[in-house]
Amino acid sequence: MEEDSMKAKMLRGELYIATDPELAAERMRCREILWELNSVAPKHAQQQIPTLVSRLFANVGKNVWVEPPFRCDYGKNITVGDNFYCNFDCCFLDVCQINVGSNVLLGPAVQVYTASHPLSASLRREGYEDGSPITIGNDVWIGGGAILLPGVSIGSNVVIGAGSVVTKSIPDNVIAAGNPCKVLRPNASHREPPRQET
Amino acid sequence: MEEDSMKAKMLRGELYIATDPELAAERMRCREILWELNSVAPKHAQQQIPTLVSRLFANVGKNVWVEPPFRCDYGKNITVGDNFYCNFDCCFLDVCQINVGSNVLLGPAVQVYTASHPLSASLRREGYEDGSPITIGNDVWIGGGAILLPGVSIGSNVVIGAGSVVTKSIPDNVIAAGNPCKVLRPNASHREPPRQET
Amino acid sequence: MEEDSMKAKMLRGELYIATDPELAAERMRCREILWELNSVAPKHAQQQIPTLVSRLFANVGKNVWVEPPFRCDYGKNITVGDNFYCNFDCCFLDVCQINVGSNVLLGPAVQVYTASHPLSASLRREGYEDGSPITIGNDVWIGGGAILLPGVSIGSNVVIGAGSVVTKSIPDNVIAAGNPCKVLRPNASHREPPRQET
Repeated sequence: MEEDSMKAKMLRGELYIATDPELAAERMRCREILWELNSVAPKHAQQQIPTLVSRLFANVGKNVWVEPPFRCDYGKNITVGDNFYCNFDCCFLDVCQINVGSNVLLGPAVQVYTASHPLSASLRREGYEDGSPITIGNDVWIGGGAILLPGVSIGSNVVIGAGSVVTKSIPDNVIAAGNPCKVLRPNASHREPPRQET
Repeated sequence: MEEDSMKAKMLRGELYIATDPELAAERMRCREILWELNSVAPKHAQQQIPTLVSRLFANVGKNVWVEPPFRCDYGKNITVGDNFYCNFDCCFLDVCQINVGSNVLLGPAVQVYTASHPLSASLRREGYEDGSPITIGNDVWIGGGAILLPGVSIGSNVVIGAGSVVTKSIPDNVIAAGNPCKVLRPNASHREPPRQET
Repeated sequence: MEEDSMKAKMLRGELYIATDPELAAERMRCREILWELNSVAPKHAQQQIPTLVSRLFANVGKNVWVEPPFRCDYGKNITVGDNFYCNFDCCFLDVCQINVGSNVLLGPAVQVYTASHPLSASLRREGYEDGSPITIGNDVWIGGGAILLPGVSIGSNVVIGAGSVVTKSIPDNVIAAGNPCKVLRPNASHREPPRQET
């Protein structure tokens, strides 16, 4: 990758032009795999989905599942650890890296946006875009419909409430929710015993 | 149903393991019907959608309509009364019962989640999940993009604002909105005359 | 169009009955085009999407793009200016006019709702609906998952934060966010220089 290519600028979080041919080709590769993933019949899901997700993302751990439909821009800027589960209708705008740890559960319709636009209307008219990477730690559960904004980090052992809009990074070991998302309390439940085991 | 089966535990709101074969088979039944529902061409919608929704849900009243695409986990844990209308892209996670009254309108992208996970990361790693039932009364209009969390009840003659996150139960005869959703005012409009009838 | 037709009442924002045959036929026209748009394979997108969007909407400017899937009710009540970009999974309920200016970017899952229902349960049971038009100015960026409610206007040179619920009109030259959406600050960035041009 050329250091001053649009792709390099994009990944570094600098202003770039998305119509660049190299980027357009990478988005087309992604769209073709998404097209397959989002067309898998239920009876073939068990066999085909893990393979398609492995082709789509840069790196995947063991035991990874994405419920279709799923949307993303490049796929190759996403890495996920072991035991990743992503429910229906999630959308990852991965113009910068999205790095997800192990044992992460995403509810339906979760939106993970590294993509951004300049606040300046004149820069937007010229086609400039930019972005900022997102990281999610280990042992994280993100409730359905939550939105993660460019540049945020979610710590480990974290629960994010459904419908939250995460505008700032969230530390380890907390429960957080709201628009904007705020820490509600520590997540002390790592010592919680099973409730109804027989 | 065996009293200590995973299915029985799930429906009672106890911790259960979703990879259980009986539950996996029931989810596959649901996926096959959703696959059909979400593939209905517009010209066949009038004829096919009511039939497919009747097969998908446990019980349906008269005059029931679901705009595809629609998502749910089991379908058989959902009952809806007469005159049910659900707009595009709604998602019902029905690991516990979802009971909907008569004359209920849902906007697009409404999320109804009975499904939950333990706050304890170690329990989540072991595959435990749980849930809590949701009920919606009669004469309810839920605005687009609203999210209903596990265990909430919505009363009768209620309007829930678009984009609300309903974390606690809402009584009868109110208008409620926000994240978290709060009662804004009584809904006194049951006496409201038609506005522009000619 | 007859002045007292259901279509005329709908467009004027008066109470109307959506099962009216003229309106049902117009929605069917829309569904057929959406069916095509939402089935375009990636390799045909560049060629087919602009044509389908031109057929779907009442008027479109130059350089218009809608990422499928997209949902709307009529299509013919939507006009967009030049350089319109709408990301995945947006939904426009266009029972009244939606007028969008030039240089407008919508993130994924943006919801634009002109459609409303009476607060009176008895009117809703009789099938009455109503709506109110929405306008969006020039040079507007609306973040993903934002919801615009019936009757709002968004000014020009505006940024709306992701996940906002816009319940009241937003003036020109501001950055606004939240549920409900409020003005955060003026958007002074029209003088902002490019950040990393080489």
